[in-house]
Amino acid sequence: MSDIMEMLVRRGFLWQSFEIYGGMAGFIDYAPLGNNLRRKIENIWRKYFVINERAVEIDTPTIGIEEVFIASGHATSFTDVAIECENCGRVYRADHYVKEKLGIEVDETVEAVKEVMDVYDLKCECGGKFKEPAPMNLMFSTKIGPGKGKKGYLRPETAQGMFVDFKRLAGYFREKLPFGVAQIGRAYRNEISPRQGVIRLREFNQAELEFFVHPAEKTHPDFSQVASDKVKLVDKFDNEHEMTLSEAVEKGIIANQILGYFIGKTRRFLLEIGINEDKLRFRQHKDDERAHYATDCWDAEVETSYGWIEVVGIADRTDYDLKKHSEYSGEDLTIFVPYTQPVKVKRRRLVPKMNKIGPTFKEKAKKIAEAFSTFNVNSDADEIEIVVDGERIKISKEFFDIEEVEEEIAGEKIVPHVIEPSFGLDRISYAVLEHAYDKDVVDGEERRVLRLKRKVSPVEVAVLPLLSREPFESKAQEIVSLLRSKGIYTEYDDSGSIGRRYRRFDEIGTPFCITVDHQTFDDDTVTIRDRDTTRQVRVKIESLPTILKELLESERDITEFGEVFR
Amino acid sequence: MSDIMEMLVRRGFLWQSFEIYGGMAGFIDYAPLGNNLRRKIENIWRKYFVINERAVEIDTPTIGIEEVFIASGHATSFTDVAIECENCGRVYRADHYVKEKLGIEVDETVEAVKEVMDVYDLKCECGGKFKEPAPMNLMFSTKIGPGKGKKGYLRPETAQGMFVDFKRLAGYFREKLPFGVAQIGRAYRNEISPRQGVIRLREFNQAELEFFVHPAEKTHPDFSQVASDKVKLVDKFDNEHEMTLSEAVEKGIIANQILGYFIGKTRRFLLEIGINEDKLRFRQHKDDERAHYATDCWDAEVETSYGWIEVVGIADRTDYDLKKHSEYSGEDLTIFVPYTQPVKVKRRRLVPKMNKIGPTFKEKAKKIAEAFSTFNVNSDADEIEIVVDGERIKISKEFFDIEEVEEEIAGEKIVPHVIEPSFGLDRISYAVLEHAYDKDVVDGEERRVLRLKRKVSPVEVAVLPLLSREPFESKAQEIVSLLRSKGIYTEYDDSGSIGRRYRRFDEIGTPFCITVDHQTFDDDTVTIRDRDTTRQVRVKIESLPTILKELLESERDITEFGEVFR
Repeated sequence: MSDIMEMLVRRGFLWQSFEIYGGMAGFIDYAPLGNNLRRKIENIWRKYFVINERAVEIDTPTIGIEEVFIASGHATSFTDVAIECENCGRVYRADHYVKEKLGIEVDETVEAVKEVMDVYDLKCECGGKFKEPAPMNLMFSTKIGPGKGKKGYLRPETAQGMFVDFKRLAGYFREKLPFGVAQIGRAYRNEISPRQGVIRLREFNQAELEFFVHPAEKTHPDFSQVASDKVKLVDKFDNEHEMTLSEAVEKGIIANQILGYFIGKTRRFLLEIGINEDKLRFRQHKDDERAHYATDCWDAEVETSYGWIEVVGIADRTDYDLKKHSEYSGEDLTIFVPYTQPVKVKRRRLVPKMNKIGPTFKEKAKKIAEAFSTFNVNSDADEIEIVVDGERIKISKEFFDIEEVEEEIAGEKIVPHVIEPSFGLDRISYAVLEHAYDKDVVDGEERRVLRLKRKVSPVEVAVLPLLSREPFESKAQEIVSLLRSKGIYTEYDDSGSIGRRYRRFDEIGTPFCITVDHQTFDDDTVTIRDRDTTRQVRVKIESLPTILKELLESERDITEFGEVFR
Repeated sequence: MSDIMEMLVRRGFLWQSFEIYGGMAGFIDYAPLGNNLRRKIENIWRKYFVINERAVEIDTPTIGIEEVFIASGHATSFTDVAIECENCGRVYRADHYVKEKLGIEVDETVEAVKEVMDVYDLKCECGGKFKEPAPMNLMFSTKIGPGKGKKGYLRPETAQGMFVDFKRLAGYFREKLPFGVAQIGRAYRNEISPRQGVIRLREFNQAELEFFVHPAEKTHPDFSQVASDKVKLVDKFDNEHEMTLSEAVEKGIIANQILGYFIGKTRRFLLEIGINEDKLRFRQHKDDERAHYATDCWDAEVETSYGWIEVVGIADRTDYDLKKHSEYSGEDLTIFVPYTQPVKVKRRRLVPKMNKIGPTFKEKAKKIAEAFSTFNVNSDADEIEIVVDGERIKISKEFFDIEEVEEEIAGEKIVPHVIEPSFGLDRISYAVLEHAYDKDVVDGEERRVLRLKRKVSPVEVAVLPLLSREPFESKAQEIVSLLRSKGIYTEYDDSGSIGRRYRRFDEIGTPFCITVDHQTFDDDTVTIRDRDTTRQVRVKIESLPTILKELLESERDITEFGEVFR
């Protein structure tokens, strides 16, 4: 286990799920500190992508009925190619196994895998022969209700719940584009053989925003806020660029402005929670790498001990999903977009000659005349064909006149396109921890310190009695209660020397330690110690909550709040 | 549909899941407003039961491996009795169907149901005969990994994830009791035939606290904070009491102090989020109603249009779960509790006579002598029986001496008991909405108003331009951006008369409307309107964020912040 993973497990960030039963690959427990960290990251995400966006958040079930995933294509296409050993029965994900054993990047198709297996005579680790490669669906399936029940799947992405609700959501926004819908929650992927700990999970946490726009207006009103931000881009031809977003959009490296906007916003979000800018880049999917529904896609990648890993995908999913759900559900998932001014159009219209139609077509005459009203005539026609009660009827021009009319059209129905920034919260949380992990020397001793941003630190304040006896302990406990009542995550610790306790909180990234010392009982003051500088200032107990709230919401220096004495 | 449900769907609190595919009973979507409301309730719960408690929060998978639920008993005992029609194939939950058709409360056992069915000749609604009643397990099952995979279940409660992590958690707390572990998240129950909308869900949201205590110390250090709170109690004999918690604990109506403490804390939490005290009571489970693992259990019940419904269960689960998991996993799930002073105990000890054992038992001699060291001798024995490598061996007293020794014991290993307050967040959110729903008369017109507590209101502030044209609109949008940047949930609305817009926000419970009017452009002021009193005050735009934050965190009156002009 790496240095940092050892620390994360020991100190209570991440634990192996079901550890007492031997564990299970692909599952992870958020221990107390990891849980707080991830929840805080989620709340900052909300500020960026919900509260300060033209967006709302919803929460739909993690179990979905089969219909949803038949329409979305997941029931047939959400697969990996698996290979199973005839001898020992072990099953591997084909592309990963080929990569590991042969160092070859193989396409994720049965044919490509089969070819490589044949050419290289690929064997199982046990020496056994593999069966034919076969696609395996990666959704967890289940059964809803008693008896045979109804087939259901655990959602492979939160996105589908938002597409399925599109009609309601469009109503909520009174059909005014653009609007966004966000969801934070669990998603599932029944990986064939996950091995990379927290990086490849079977149950994971997503934060997704579906931002619906007019297909002809892939812009964002707030683009100017990020337009001059410089970003590191790797385009689909593997060329690297470092340029402003406006430049990248102008040059067509990023397909449209709104993708550029969300790349910019994603970058700012990742930096705010503590991702190291030197270890962040945006990589464009290659043409053969994109999901079937996307026209352009950029991944935010961060560098970790696992190499560069994808933590966010920002895709233009076009109208693929809405069209599919409309087709399979039979619901109209369009939005009526009024023109700024009604448009006048000329139209040729059929005028029935009832005195001729009546005698010829008898009881069908009325329906034929009705069918005329919706018929579009493009040119002078000698004969037209209409459908009445399923019957095609040819009608020659003796039965109608053609008349040119002018009509006013107020707008048009469109199927919006959707831009989707999709965040993998587990990988992001882990990367934040890795990027914060540091060692330095304090008082001649090596110190392990987690330089987390204050707003994501799981324990915000530690209160320490200088000596573990009365009245120090009671006074410290009193302060703990005071701070907790203000909603501050506060811990108490009286065990070990004060230096050892400082180190303990440095290691979990607690930005501030409050110490109750002898002077506390003279003048009602305590010291605040800063994790990074290890400097201390002395402040009145009564002003602690205000000072700490201010410090925790900013990155201000503690020396602004009191005199440094160490 | 009831008045309120119609409003909740129309305005975007709750939607039917998978509506465009015809929906599915037992699932609900949290629409934008409902999602915000529930998330806010969760955060207030955190303040009560995590931050201001000796507790931490963790987050474990929703999928659990089979072993967990075999140990917990859910794999065998988490069942309802189902009856299936031979004719139409419909399946009902037996006790609900019997209650509905015959008005009889039947025990949830196959035998009891069978008896009632026979006596009353119970038929299906279609007229068909029922098959034999049978238990149906209520967990959703799934398969983890490829091939035959591994059996897994969707967790029926968040609790098990905390019991399974007990060893790690005890370490986190350095084995100091009492400590609490909380979890907020999804749980699942594959109901046979759910019919009650949001009240009986197949996928629901729980907030659970497992509070581990020494079995002999079922007290809580903060009991005094709630001891004199008066609560409405219905004991297991259906007697009603209204008394203080200290009285109820003293009289033994509530089994122990810590249950009393959590009843008090639960009551305060429910009142803070807006449950009406007149519609809240605590009901004790009857002896035949309690879960197999509980010794005493109290439900918080609230009155709604569905009648009195359980929203919280507060149970003393004893050491049932930890013992089971210890037994099935083979892990030691005890805590070492040191005595305040080491205790001296006399012990009789076997002293092996090696010169006799050697020749007689040969290669087993050494192991026999070792086994002696852990053997407790209670009386003078002529013969003892020990186990060596699985073999029972009788050994007569010629092979050992008995010696009395004094040993010092520092403490003992105990299996903690657990007190569990378990909250159903969906029912709580719904009840909060029902209790807030009100009608009154304003300016001679009936008004629908949701009197939500400010801290749970999904839209905190609405900003309205008096007229829907420039410069009113831009100024209002500017204020929206300002407030959103401070993390305030703010909406903008320029459609319809100002009175109509006020009503729209009254209906969704928005506590404050800000109006940009003509005077705004003279002196940079806007009006704040209070939802409940409909009174307005005028304040400077620059002071808006501070005033609104103060108002939203308290229930202070707006007239404290400006002069009333209406």
